[in-house]
Amino acid sequence: MTTIEHSTLEVAVLANGQALSVPVYRIRGESDGPSVYIQANMHGAEVQGNAVIYQLLEQFKSLHCLGNITLVPLANPIGSNQKSGEFTLGRFDPITGENWNRGYHFNKSLPIEFAADNKQLTNEEIKQKFRQAIIDDLEKNKLNNPYGAKTSQLLCAQLQRMAFDADIVLDLHTGPISSRHLYCPEYAKDRATLFDIPHVLFIPSDFDGAMDEATFCPWWQLQQAYQAQGRDIDVMVEAFTLELGSQEWLSLAAASEDSDSVLSYLQARGVIKGEVFNPRQMTRYGCMLEHYRALYAPQSGLVEYLAPFGEILEEGQPLVQMLHMERYVDDDCVTQVNAPQRCIPVLHFASASVNRGTELYKVMTNFFTL
Amino acid sequence: MTTIEHSTLEVAVLANGQALSVPVYRIRGESDGPSVYIQANMHGAEVQGNAVIYQLLEQFKSLHCLGNITLVPLANPIGSNQKSGEFTLGRFDPITGENWNRGYHFNKSLPIEFAADNKQLTNEEIKQKFRQAIIDDLEKNKLNNPYGAKTSQLLCAQLQRMAFDADIVLDLHTGPISSRHLYCPEYAKDRATLFDIPHVLFIPSDFDGAMDEATFCPWWQLQQAYQAQGRDIDVMVEAFTLELGSQEWLSLAAASEDSDSVLSYLQARGVIKGEVFNPRQMTRYGCMLEHYRALYAPQSGLVEYLAPFGEILEEGQPLVQMLHMERYVDDDCVTQVNAPQRCIPVLHFASASVNRGTELYKVMTNFFTL
Amino acid sequence: MTTIEHSTLEVAVLANGQALSVPVYRIRGESDGPSVYIQANMHGAEVQGNAVIYQLLEQFKSLHCLGNITLVPLANPIGSNQKSGEFTLGRFDPITGENWNRGYHFNKSLPIEFAADNKQLTNEEIKQKFRQAIIDDLEKNKLNNPYGAKTSQLLCAQLQRMAFDADIVLDLHTGPISSRHLYCPEYAKDRATLFDIPHVLFIPSDFDGAMDEATFCPWWQLQQAYQAQGRDIDVMVEAFTLELGSQEWLSLAAASEDSDSVLSYLQARGVIKGEVFNPRQMTRYGCMLEHYRALYAPQSGLVEYLAPFGEILEEGQPLVQMLHMERYVDDDCVTQVNAPQRCIPVLHFASASVNRGTELYKVMTNFFTL
Amino acid sequence: MTTIEHSTLEVAVLANGQALSVPVYRIRGESDGPSVYIQANMHGAEVQGNAVIYQLLEQFKSLHCLGNITLVPLANPIGSNQKSGEFTLGRFDPITGENWNRGYHFNKSLPIEFAADNKQLTNEEIKQKFRQAIIDDLEKNKLNNPYGAKTSQLLCAQLQRMAFDADIVLDLHTGPISSRHLYCPEYAKDRATLFDIPHVLFIPSDFDGAMDEATFCPWWQLQQAYQAQGRDIDVMVEAFTLELGSQEWLSLAAASEDSDSVLSYLQARGVIKGEVFNPRQMTRYGCMLEHYRALYAPQSGLVEYLAPFGEILEEGQPLVQMLHMERYVDDDCVTQVNAPQRCIPVLHFASASVNRGTELYKVMTNFFTL
Repeated sequence: MTTIEHSTLEVAVLANGQALSVPVYRIRGESDGPSVYIQANMHGAEVQGNAVIYQLLEQFKSLHCLGNITLVPLANPIGSNQKSGEFTLGRFDPITGENWNRGYHFNKSLPIEFAADNKQLTNEEIKQKFRQAIIDDLEKNKLNNPYGAKTSQLLCAQLQRMAFDADIVLDLHTGPISSRHLYCPEYAKDRATLFDIPHVLFIPSDFDGAMDEATFCPWWQLQQAYQAQGRDIDVMVEAFTLELGSQEWLSLAAASEDSDSVLSYLQARGVIKGEVFNPRQMTRYGCMLEHYRALYAPQSGLVEYLAPFGEILEEGQPLVQMLHMERYVDDDCVTQVNAPQRCIPVLHFASASVNRGTELYKVMTNFFTL
Repeated sequence: MTTIEHSTLEVAVLANGQALSVPVYRIRGESDGPSVYIQANMHGAEVQGNAVIYQLLEQFKSLHCLGNITLVPLANPIGSNQKSGEFTLGRFDPITGENWNRGYHFNKSLPIEFAADNKQLTNEEIKQKFRQAIIDDLEKNKLNNPYGAKTSQLLCAQLQRMAFDADIVLDLHTGPISSRHLYCPEYAKDRATLFDIPHVLFIPSDFDGAMDEATFCPWWQLQQAYQAQGRDIDVMVEAFTLELGSQEWLSLAAASEDSDSVLSYLQARGVIKGEVFNPRQMTRYGCMLEHYRALYAPQSGLVEYLAPFGEILEEGQPLVQMLHMERYVDDDCVTQVNAPQRCIPVLHFASASVNRGTELYKVMTNFFTL
Repeated sequence: MTTIEHSTLEVAVLANGQALSVPVYRIRGESDGPSVYIQANMHGAEVQGNAVIYQLLEQFKSLHCLGNITLVPLANPIGSNQKSGEFTLGRFDPITGENWNRGYHFNKSLPIEFAADNKQLTNEEIKQKFRQAIIDDLEKNKLNNPYGAKTSQLLCAQLQRMAFDADIVLDLHTGPISSRHLYCPEYAKDRATLFDIPHVLFIPSDFDGAMDEATFCPWWQLQQAYQAQGRDIDVMVEAFTLELGSQEWLSLAAASEDSDSVLSYLQARGVIKGEVFNPRQMTRYGCMLEHYRALYAPQSGLVEYLAPFGEILEEGQPLVQMLHMERYVDDDCVTQVNAPQRCIPVLHFASASVNRGTELYKVMTNFFTL
Repeated sequence: MTTIEHSTLEVAVLANGQALSVPVYRIRGESDGPSVYIQANMHGAEVQGNAVIYQLLEQFKSLHCLGNITLVPLANPIGSNQKSGEFTLGRFDPITGENWNRGYHFNKSLPIEFAADNKQLTNEEIKQKFRQAIIDDLEKNKLNNPYGAKTSQLLCAQLQRMAFDADIVLDLHTGPISSRHLYCPEYAKDRATLFDIPHVLFIPSDFDGAMDEATFCPWWQLQQAYQAQGRDIDVMVEAFTLELGSQEWLSLAAASEDSDSVLSYLQARGVIKGEVFNPRQMTRYGCMLEHYRALYAPQSGLVEYLAPFGEILEEGQPLVQMLHMERYVDDDCVTQVNAPQRCIPVLHFASASVNRGTELYKVMTNFFTL
């Protein structure tokens, strides 16, 4: 029987002086399997990951966990509690507009300097010493900066501090209205089929502020720096962003399926013992990030979304139907927006009304089967 | 072939000096049938009524309209264009919080004074003269007030000015996530079954600021005032609020059904000629407004809505399941909120996360079959 | 030396399960002086009242308090923590638009029923028994309702529960950009000059949802109900709303002046012992609430506020200058909005850009010297 | 007498189909002086630049303008019209959180490729041909992209298209609560003293999405690319961001001073004829951008801003005083935040309540006298 420890971590303080905290659940591994960090709900409206963590905890109780596992649901108490109308306005800091999932820290000179200064270390020494280096750098620049740090950076840094202890990081998100899809770093592309997720976006080693990047960029760029010296090492951690469907939607039943999917991956990576959880047979499509395209509304209006997710749409087939009630009589009152090229729709906007320039759909182009 | 005239009416001016306007579509009646005013989308996120107006216009082209018909889609250009995150924050003025559908004008002393001063008039004279009186009162107090009027009052007054010319007013709304339902004044309860709407709320003659009330309250209270004098007259206009399903949702197909439903009503009231449109056979439930109850969340948390709309729920059966990920291990992590009494759920909140005190569900209690 | 007790009261629960609470400071009276309840910051941006409570607490330490005093700063933790951009969007519930200071409870049939049922009671018995009646009614309808209550109602009810124990209630607010002004019930008009506040609005016995009204309406309408029976009793409690200047503004120095002003009133009412605090010599203007007029912007544009507070403005003199940069060359680019009648400006809008219908200024008309 | 032409440019379309446009004022130069583009109010709450454009237009009427001048007030009609509470929430797109002044386009490979491909051109040919190249690139990537572009990018691209025709670009902004300050590219540092602006931030050639950078980065990086080839050319355009004081504040009198300041600069650059306008004698401080530091609130609370702008503050002197009314009795209720090092405060936050991590002040460190 697995023991689950519960603690809370203060991550923000409100204007009235009250602290906001996140719950932290910890399982001590039975042996020296890879350590894992899983968080959910960094964007306030994307709640389904919490239900997946719930189902994982329920499962872990009767599983053998070989490595340490840390689970952080409700990871962003500011975003979770920010309403504007009925909608949870939890995608960005309401004061500054900064996307909560772009506040993580990465010091791009660190991997290069480290590789230059530490040529003699063994792989195991590299792992230990570099991990300490990125932790020290995070603490110095964000957690203990005499000028302070932004609200979003403080939140991110505290989560990142926990994630830095792990070999595997899973960040559970959702799209707006969305199918399941996975952001997978290119170097780890063989792991993509371990999840029951039909759409996979392969991402390069650039840093754009997100948790998955903040986790693997240091290690990936370290691997590249050693490679430039002629030494081949593995990227020593891996991180994925799982998009588990739509925001503002909670389903314990669907969460149970995603929990099984995560357990397949964890079992394959040696985090849990046994052979019970295995990826499902399914068609999985992948594309490179640069071919994952947003289509912006060419005009404003009311929108009926037509294209289903996960099915191939040929060039010229309709994505949406738009209603323009200001131009009945005089002009086309009902119009369509069509696919600019062959693609697979993955997600669409959450509202039935859009401005010119609103992101209507995101689609995979130049896709391939995994 | 019916001719549809298109004009636009300026209803607001933005801070940068640009006017916002509403499209107005007008059909001249072939004879002296009742005049009709239909508007949609007074709350910004409630777009489906626009599609119903679209389908009505398509139908009217080949129908014989006996009375004048005015249709105003996109009735609130401020609300339609107010986004906060992806959601259309169009329920209230973002500056003041005032619900856009509570800004209509009603001078409660007017019916009493009119009835006192106009005892000798015929019914037809009453209709003409009282209509002029409420128009004059509206123009004096809201449209031409030397102190101006609030943004919401100015918008409402201009729509109300058009509605005052009509014998029948339909205000097309939607709920948050909702079944179809109808607000029907008690005096007009026999008209409720002319629509294909399964849930009907019967409302009293009180004024709370909404368009339907602003339409019928003057006439209903006039009828009461004459009744107090011992004279029986009819309430000379009628007004309904139709809730056409969920907000942030557009469906031309569903709109076609609702258009047929509205045409059934209009045909029965003599607005269109023929016998083509008739109400569908269906179970219709009604209750008095005081028995239409909101259930507020007794605690905060993430919500999975369980109770379907339109089906009888017995006392103690679950409405929602709530997930509280901050209390796994220590306390009940999954809880339920149950029906406090026998009821029929009509609508629920739009978000998957709620505070204590958020309106979870609205339900009919003490309901009956129409 | 006065002892100040500190406790906290949970008044709301956030979506992530965390409670929000208000600090409550209590002083036990040395004898049986009137009991007092003072709260501040019910609207999130109106912070200055907190500083006044701070200065009052500093003073109370060395004063003799004869009655019990309860002080609640930061009274609305939801509003205090609701940002939208830099501004504290704390005037209304961001989900529903409901003004936080309109959620208090008042059962208008209670005073009438009580007076009918309790004709034989002494004044002291009336005071005790009616107080219990309104407390019971509040608990039954808001705090223990099986259908729950709205977030704003729950917050208000908990504050109101504390206020119901007091003989004197002061609700500390501010305007947007504003001079000091006071809302004073008509029956207590001789107390208006006890404060150092130059502008006084006299309000009738109607209930519109605010704390001051929720405090005095039951007792005032009780007094009226007994009067209708031919029995004269006093209104047994009194309540004032103090507007302490502008929102989003904190000044410990100005707070010290307002603290002295409140102490003058409390000393005169026998709450504190001594003769130290006395109202300042100043010109005080008053008007009836119906003559306190809002002027709404007749057009949209950028605004330079010209009229200073507290000085008499003659009809036709300018309140604001507006800049319309969209119409340079073609039209008047700079316009003025003038006073429609002789008045004293009391407050103006907080932003430099307005829509048509935005409340520009509030002014006293038909004013008189106190 | 100078002729001012007025046109309007459509830059956005609202959900209800209505276009939003910006006013464009154009003056044809009398000879071949440098062409100028001036815009204001890209952030919705920063209105004072419009008043400066007003005063400039008033002055230009009687001046000799040697080059073409284009003036665009109210440059962001979306931002200008976005309210949330009384405040104009115009800093970022309310849907996505994207800062309106970070949506400009820059293709960093263009200068390098151009310099590689065009070694033989004369300076004058470079100027003409490179200008065309950046215009073509902008049109292809943003204005005519088959996938469309984001709302903010479409707005920015249309403004940028006009700015690309100019030799001099001035973008008029304000801070939150702020002194006058200037963002000046390092290569143009001798122009900083031509304005009557006491604080100057010198910025490097990096691109971060703002209008000034979008203007000079292509040309500056072109200059650097030629320099790498051993050829010295000038940076052929210049661009400045002027911060004209505080947001939500309009003053025609202050605008007149800033208009004179801009005319001093334009006269010195040969845009207007004469010797009338000359920079005022004043102490001007400058620092490099990396030394312009934001201080983030180390704790949450209510804030009284103490440090005046433009005066040297020694290390340890107080910037703000904070009030924490939740901890009276038990803890320090009034605290201070002090300068971490010697600095000159330039701006501070606009609200009196802050979270931990809110930007309290921005200060110049390692400053010097110009």
